[in-house]
Amino acid sequence: MSKLEDTIAAVRPLDEVAIAEARARQDRMTKPRGSLGVLEDVSVRLAGLAGVCPPEVPEPAAVAVFASDHGVHAQGVTPWPQEVTAQMVLNFLAGGAVVNVFAAQAGARVTVVDVGVAANLETVPGLLSHKIAPGTADMTEGPAMTRDQARQALETGIKVAEGLALSGVRCLAAGDMGIANTTASAALIAVLTGRDPREVTGRGTGIDDATLARKVDVIGRALALHRPDPSDPLGVLAAVGGFEHGAIAGFILGAAAARLPVVLDGVITGAAALVAAAFAPDALAACFAGHRSVEPGHDAALRHLGLRPLIDLDLRLGEGTGAVLALPILQSAARALRDVATFDSAGVTDKDEVATLDA
Amino acid sequence: MSKLEDTIAAVRPLDEVAIAEARARQDRMTKPRGSLGVLEDVSVRLAGLAGVCPPEVPEPAAVAVFASDHGVHAQGVTPWPQEVTAQMVLNFLAGGAVVNVFAAQAGARVTVVDVGVAANLETVPGLLSHKIAPGTADMTEGPAMTRDQARQALETGIKVAEGLALSGVRCLAAGDMGIANTTASAALIAVLTGRDPREVTGRGTGIDDATLARKVDVIGRALALHRPDPSDPLGVLAAVGGFEHGAIAGFILGAAAARLPVVLDGVITGAAALVAAAFAPDALAACFAGHRSVEPGHDAALRHLGLRPLIDLDLRLGEGTGAVLALPILQSAARALRDVATFDSAGVTDKDEVATLDA
Repeated sequence: MSKLEDTIAAVRPLDEVAIAEARARQDRMTKPRGSLGVLEDVSVRLAGLAGVCPPEVPEPAAVAVFASDHGVHAQGVTPWPQEVTAQMVLNFLAGGAVVNVFAAQAGARVTVVDVGVAANLETVPGLLSHKIAPGTADMTEGPAMTRDQARQALETGIKVAEGLALSGVRCLAAGDMGIANTTASAALIAVLTGRDPREVTGRGTGIDDATLARKVDVIGRALALHRPDPSDPLGVLAAVGGFEHGAIAGFILGAAAARLPVVLDGVITGAAALVAAAFAPDALAACFAGHRSVEPGHDAALRHLGLRPLIDLDLRLGEGTGAVLALPILQSAARALRDVATFDSAGVTDKDEVATLDA
Repeated sequence: MSKLEDTIAAVRPLDEVAIAEARARQDRMTKPRGSLGVLEDVSVRLAGLAGVCPPEVPEPAAVAVFASDHGVHAQGVTPWPQEVTAQMVLNFLAGGAVVNVFAAQAGARVTVVDVGVAANLETVPGLLSHKIAPGTADMTEGPAMTRDQARQALETGIKVAEGLALSGVRCLAAGDMGIANTTASAALIAVLTGRDPREVTGRGTGIDDATLARKVDVIGRALALHRPDPSDPLGVLAAVGGFEHGAIAGFILGAAAARLPVVLDGVITGAAALVAAAFAPDALAACFAGHRSVEPGHDAALRHLGLRPLIDLDLRLGEGTGAVLALPILQSAARALRDVATFDSAGVTDKDEVATLDA
């Protein structure tokens, strides 16, 4: 088997014993039962993923930013020139982008991966060069990539996840950079959630009504041309995806196979998570939704995946910013499960024990 | 004038020059305009509070947990015995509570203040002892406290904020501990938002239908007895508040006077913020809503105050947990304003500049 099939086979369900232990421990901690809300579920899932209770606190963390360009840019779906993708890659490497600053605050490492930027970046120090091609093809004229290229993108993401895991990273976060990639994201989401392109296409970095209408039309034409089959995720990715979508989907599969949590960002990583889940539904158990962006397709993807976002503050930047911003929440949830005293150990009266004695 | 009046007089509006500079800087940062959503507003407000752009990153942070007991506990509004307040104070000092663990993750200090616990804690190491009385009186039988005691609570909170500011802390967070204090919170919120007690009374730590009905009835009886005048915040606090509500309101006023951000927690600090705003509306400019709890009164308070919560994850614990969890978000917003490269400095093309050139 290839790396992709090996990885998919290594993705397993959560450990039910650790889950039961984590739930029981949450109920003995010095706080009213259930009072940590969503954070209790997060901690329980981290235990199930680690296969032990309490699980280690998921740190250090690293965010991988996968950058690529898109042939569909030629259709006028965004006012940003394509060269901004390469310019932002240099900005990431110089430490000047928002994801760098958020990562510094969260104590996370930033890894930048070129999977398809339409510029010569081979000699740029610090950049992981895994360029599949200088941008995808235009999805309105043919498939965005070949099936081989789609597989190559997926396996690149798997390798990046494996490398970070081997280097001692214990929490992964996914990010993206690619001018026009909200168009490919909306196309993937439309196919994989079964929704109409009009429902899942948004304004991305902030486009006007005419550009939005063109974007919806472009996606509709691409879907009419390819008629992608949702049960063939490699085919869907090849038809309308981006190299970064494939790499992020692989990154998620690699994280799940390594049993590391992977925090998702916005609409691009949400679309990639749909692809990953189509390959291996159990990979979702490793996924935590860092935030919900204002892109309508992101909400549709999160609902389809059954993931509740940890942060909901109208971000719409990408780069992994919403994922990195959520890292301290994930880490706090795990740390509480590990370190909070129990009613017994702290000598605090438990109302439910009182109720039992009263009865 | 007294300390309270001095502090109220020192609370001033935000600095409009720094606000304008921060807005302009956000628009030059290497990201689509507006793409940091709520975090842009947070950073702009921090600049206005500091009176300089960029403002310093608000760290180190400290959370002050104000603990007190409540005479209304005798009315059977909660299944938790009153001694749990003192037990949890000891748990905070031993580092075993959730707020300690979240604070450790966020790099924040925890300060525990006894403003009215019904137990002898005078010799407990590490505890700030500012006990006004061993618990308030039962609001259904008379005022919870005298006007002098209400003032004493407010001035205690002011002093704690001043002390933390003098010690070099640059971001304050407010927390509470007090069995039965959601009852006093709901009463304060009903008076200060003009809502019916049924709309703003919740299940606190998790009470059954009968206890909830009793809680609503208790609040209704207390309000009928005192008919508190919302334009007299000292009288409202004295009639139906808790010592921790007074202290937290003072803490907020002290933070605003020192021009430090103060991150609010759940329904107790929300009720206290209503009291602080009734004394000095400009104090709200220093307040950031850490989270929204599941208590209906909290949402009512936040709406009345016009504060948008940074986290919304069904927490209902108090102690300052929701405030501490939000600290990294606040710090990330400030750090982005300070450290993110501009289009010019990073050599990234700005689409709005392109549009101008095209036109």
